[in-house]
Amino acid sequence: MHEDRLRELRGEIDVINLQILELLTQRAQVVSAIGLVQQTLGTSFYDPEREAEMLTRLQQANEGPFSNETISALFNQIFRASLALEEEEALAKILVQRHYPDERTVIAMADGTEVGAGDFTVISGPCAIESAEQVDEVAGALAARGVRFLRGMGWKPRTSPYDFQGLGMEGLRIARQVANRHNMFIVSEVMDKSLISEMSEYVDVFWVGARNMSNTFLLKALGQVRQPVILKRSFGANIQEFLYAAEYIVSNGNPNVILMERGIRTFETRTRNTLDLSAVALLKLETHLPVVADISHSAGRRDIAIPLARATKAVGADGVMFECHPNPPVAMSDAKQQLSIPEMHALLDEIMDEQRVLA
Amino acid sequence: MHEDRLRELRGEIDVINLQILELLTQRAQVVSAIGLVQQTLGTSFYDPEREAEMLTRLQQANEGPFSNETISALFNQIFRASLALEEEEALAKILVQRHYPDERTVIAMADGTEVGAGDFTVISGPCAIESAEQVDEVAGALAARGVRFLRGMGWKPRTSPYDFQGLGMEGLRIARQVANRHNMFIVSEVMDKSLISEMSEYVDVFWVGARNMSNTFLLKALGQVRQPVILKRSFGANIQEFLYAAEYIVSNGNPNVILMERGIRTFETRTRNTLDLSAVALLKLETHLPVVADISHSAGRRDIAIPLARATKAVGADGVMFECHPNPPVAMSDAKQQLSIPEMHALLDEIMDEQRVLA
Amino acid sequence: MHEDRLRELRGEIDVINLQILELLTQRAQVVSAIGLVQQTLGTSFYDPEREAEMLTRLQQANEGPFSNETISALFNQIFRASLALEEEEALAKILVQRHYPDERTVIAMADGTEVGAGDFTVISGPCAIESAEQVDEVAGALAARGVRFLRGMGWKPRTSPYDFQGLGMEGLRIARQVANRHNMFIVSEVMDKSLISEMSEYVDVFWVGARNMSNTFLLKALGQVRQPVILKRSFGANIQEFLYAAEYIVSNGNPNVILMERGIRTFETRTRNTLDLSAVALLKLETHLPVVADISHSAGRRDIAIPLARATKAVGADGVMFECHPNPPVAMSDAKQQLSIPEMHALLDEIMDEQRVLA
Amino acid sequence: MHEDRLRELRGEIDVINLQILELLTQRAQVVSAIGLVQQTLGTSFYDPEREAEMLTRLQQANEGPFSNETISALFNQIFRASLALEEEEALAKILVQRHYPDERTVIAMADGTEVGAGDFTVISGPCAIESAEQVDEVAGALAARGVRFLRGMGWKPRTSPYDFQGLGMEGLRIARQVANRHNMFIVSEVMDKSLISEMSEYVDVFWVGARNMSNTFLLKALGQVRQPVILKRSFGANIQEFLYAAEYIVSNGNPNVILMERGIRTFETRTRNTLDLSAVALLKLETHLPVVADISHSAGRRDIAIPLARATKAVGADGVMFECHPNPPVAMSDAKQQLSIPEMHALLDEIMDEQRVLA
Repeated sequence: MHEDRLRELRGEIDVINLQILELLTQRAQVVSAIGLVQQTLGTSFYDPEREAEMLTRLQQANEGPFSNETISALFNQIFRASLALEEEEALAKILVQRHYPDERTVIAMADGTEVGAGDFTVISGPCAIESAEQVDEVAGALAARGVRFLRGMGWKPRTSPYDFQGLGMEGLRIARQVANRHNMFIVSEVMDKSLISEMSEYVDVFWVGARNMSNTFLLKALGQVRQPVILKRSFGANIQEFLYAAEYIVSNGNPNVILMERGIRTFETRTRNTLDLSAVALLKLETHLPVVADISHSAGRRDIAIPLARATKAVGADGVMFECHPNPPVAMSDAKQQLSIPEMHALLDEIMDEQRVLA
Repeated sequence: MHEDRLRELRGEIDVINLQILELLTQRAQVVSAIGLVQQTLGTSFYDPEREAEMLTRLQQANEGPFSNETISALFNQIFRASLALEEEEALAKILVQRHYPDERTVIAMADGTEVGAGDFTVISGPCAIESAEQVDEVAGALAARGVRFLRGMGWKPRTSPYDFQGLGMEGLRIARQVANRHNMFIVSEVMDKSLISEMSEYVDVFWVGARNMSNTFLLKALGQVRQPVILKRSFGANIQEFLYAAEYIVSNGNPNVILMERGIRTFETRTRNTLDLSAVALLKLETHLPVVADISHSAGRRDIAIPLARATKAVGADGVMFECHPNPPVAMSDAKQQLSIPEMHALLDEIMDEQRVLA
Repeated sequence: MHEDRLRELRGEIDVINLQILELLTQRAQVVSAIGLVQQTLGTSFYDPEREAEMLTRLQQANEGPFSNETISALFNQIFRASLALEEEEALAKILVQRHYPDERTVIAMADGTEVGAGDFTVISGPCAIESAEQVDEVAGALAARGVRFLRGMGWKPRTSPYDFQGLGMEGLRIARQVANRHNMFIVSEVMDKSLISEMSEYVDVFWVGARNMSNTFLLKALGQVRQPVILKRSFGANIQEFLYAAEYIVSNGNPNVILMERGIRTFETRTRNTLDLSAVALLKLETHLPVVADISHSAGRRDIAIPLARATKAVGADGVMFECHPNPPVAMSDAKQQLSIPEMHALLDEIMDEQRVLA
Repeated sequence: MHEDRLRELRGEIDVINLQILELLTQRAQVVSAIGLVQQTLGTSFYDPEREAEMLTRLQQANEGPFSNETISALFNQIFRASLALEEEEALAKILVQRHYPDERTVIAMADGTEVGAGDFTVISGPCAIESAEQVDEVAGALAARGVRFLRGMGWKPRTSPYDFQGLGMEGLRIARQVANRHNMFIVSEVMDKSLISEMSEYVDVFWVGARNMSNTFLLKALGQVRQPVILKRSFGANIQEFLYAAEYIVSNGNPNVILMERGIRTFETRTRNTLDLSAVALLKLETHLPVVADISHSAGRRDIAIPLARATKAVGADGVMFECHPNPPVAMSDAKQQLSIPEMHALLDEIMDEQRVLA
């Protein structure tokens, strides 16, 4: 009986919903007519005084049960939607959103190498470029395993201004030579938009670090380069903010964005951050962009790198990033989390398809 | 002429706005009726399947000019407002909710001492009872300052089973004698409902620790005692869960509950937890129960005890709890955060009213 | 010549390095002896006052060229390493700690079914027992897939005292009959130690909920039952607290504990909690107990259940728990996250070994 | 007796500590000699091969109880300290650190107005500049109360690229005129270093938003301006990172930095962020820079603004920031948290000294 009553009441709601929709549609038509008049008059679409006046009228008429604050919030939403209509904001459709189940952005490199097409991509290399020998040793070992994307960081964001900040352009030149020798792509962090132009000569894939995820001036500038961009999730950002950060790049003209989950800040201290593989699963539902996971900075320790790499692949990520150094204990940064070359081999043994290993 | 047309169109908008308001009000009434049925059925107010069904229906009916995305966004806002209304109504029925601005529960002790009536209450004492001498020294010093509520913990919840677990009933007997000598009330943690009956002979105020905030069997049992209960917020609980935990006690018959904020778990490591004084401010808005703050376990360090005590008072709390030990460095637990007796005096100097200090 | 001088100086450095190492080793032995005394005294290893005293002494003795800040930093590192050693030694003595790489506790059920021996265990069933029909439908479907562990919750911890609290013993009797019919084991939450004795007749595996993880009176009582215990991590607890909670059970006599990761509380709101698979990987390194993951309460949504189940298996967990309901939208609790029976089949298809599926 | 043994063992530790100090000093002298040789040879101070060689030697000699990893970590610290010495990094003393109890940086504006000198500073204004009328109305009301610092944001960091991004330089020109009319200082957010030069003509105090706290290129550039800088704590940053971000500015030449706490991200959802007043108390201990709190973005709601402002003052902050708008419900951003003008008056009544109110 209660169920019957519930069904009946829900029917009433459905009717009211459609009546509201009908009124919203009527309203939009009047707003559209107003827009035409305003264009003739040369006045702005946005008119806060007028909105305040409408809200005041609604609040005077409101007899509950919604509070005046709630009514204001609801009508503000309606005002915003109307404003968007007026301004013909076709862009308001978020470009990074997946629109049908198998929609996917495949990043294609110059030689046809693809990210996001189904194969599991490995990105690796040392935390920072320290010397040509160091990068060459790691790059050679990775290339021999078929890894194509080499971390080649000239600039490192560091907490302290007195920590090693990277070799800068000199580092990039080293990385480029090494990458060319081993037929690899250079992935490199860009920390400010003023660096983009000079870096563009050396870098195959730009990398936006977690600390710059909300640097919208940088993101907009990266919307105008031809290289793909790896965008890291800030350790303090939620999934929605992460998607909108990508939207800043894509809506400015560069569709080739790879999302990188890298752990969020939580109260747990045994890992540096908490790798959020649920976010990877959700992102694969919500966006067509490729999604990879950084298992080095999230864990901050190498002893669980292999299980995390397996889990990253199993959860449906398009790839994994881990740091690899010829001699981790003497690394100038991130010593605790970089894998040695033998550890890298052990990890790849577990996540690479047999065919690839044989090939 | 354009201006006339604009005025006319705006008049139409005003009419439509009021019609939408009328429908929203009708809708809210039906939603309210649904809420009642759901409460009877014991089902959750939030029903994503039902929302999806409504949205699908609206999108099928929508013929523009708003996109389906915009319509979904607008109705989602309406759903959220309705849900908030249902939850507000459910909350309005909970006993701990404040129903008018100055509603307050005043806890009256046997001799007329009150908590929550306007005076700022101080609760203090050592983390755990270690010996009669230790408690007596602290209690004497506190009593001399007019402090009436003495921490007298016989049982201590400890992370490790091998850590000092308290002196148990023996500790309580010590605390009772000391409290009697100094005319103080004993506040003591009850860790399991099986202890309530025996503890009742010694204890003036029961204390539920953060780790037991959701131990509903304990909470329900404390609904049946005559003593007031201090309920600590779990470091992992949000404000709503905290209020509902209090409701378990109050709805089982004991209206005398004091809420204690004690910091929540966050990524910050310089303090043991993050004292949430915004929660104190919000709780003072939302509930008529007295609210106090524990500045010892939240900070986990004594060097900021004085500013935190001042802020606790300024934010509108009804009192403060801090630990005090005759010799903190040798305390058997919480050594870093307990105040010495001179530090206690310095703190009280800053938060006690002059009249009281003179008295 | 300069090169000779360099070699010579480097030789001196090598000698000094080894002398420092020798002193660090001596120091560690004294620290270890102090640790034993402190354990006897029941005091904490970490003693900031003592550290401050040592630093002051060193700074008074320091005559350069290192600044006092640098000396403090170096010795702080030594203090931290020593503290870690003390804690490591204390931890090495806790029973749940893994002492050699392949040490494992295998839970053996009456009929020889094992958890933690290498096979991937599935635990499933509805959130709460609502009726015999409901449980029977789910149990039958699970049993047909070879699932042996059935959730059969008589009591449900609920945030609000007005929410459905479970059918109690009546629910357990239903669950027992259904489990017997399908040759399954009943896994059931125990919310208070006063229930253990009566529940023992019906329950094959006790379950301690996240909210009771630190209810040490309950944990100690479960150290005295013959059934295995599934211990859930509190959403507010770190890994160390989780291990020590297990230690409460094991040190009181019951070695058969299964750890269940279920997500921790973070700022991300798109999932109910953040599933911490790094914790699963770390727990597999640090303890010999079986570790499983609850992918229903962590995510709070069913649309990512399959990838999370795959990742749970890949990260090395001994099993997975998910909720399954014949009609999730009408479930009396957790409607959003329970899988329907067809969804359960789809999930098992992805994580069960082929042989098992054929068998 | 145990206490005696403890004292004795601690004496041994003290002796060993001093021996280690002695060896470190000797080592530093040899390192210094090596530095001279290297300067003659023109080789780099940093020599990873040599470090690896030393570590290998130490690991071979190490017989426990420290693991080789711990020994590597300890010696890495020693290597780093030595390297710093070699490079004569006098800068390694953190400039923002307080060196004696009452050390304080006082920010002096052109007309002698001071921040950090003891008076409680109020910074207020609308979230974003929307029109000259809007800013003028708020500025006039604030100026009449003696408030001197006006928020005048031309650029707003927004989550979505489709949200209102501010009026840019046009907004700043408006703000400047209004500020001049009311004899106020303009505080304005700088989102990229490329804007600094143009903004410098209009802005009295630069503001670095939470999302840019780790934008080290921006921070370094702000080290070279003459205006003071307000640096907001990122909602994902801990206190140490916050201090080092300030150090980026100060070490690049601008000593006039004001730290602004604005809430951190936690699991609590009733407030937008969790205002961390313990951080304010700690910062006042650890740095000589002025510290203020933003009570608008932290709470995200105006109904607790007054108690939070009182608590901010009581905890020892040098000032408070809150948003104020002539008509909050129609604000283009942050509608829920901006105070109306009457609310602003009510707040100031509670935190301004009586003399000031009378004056």
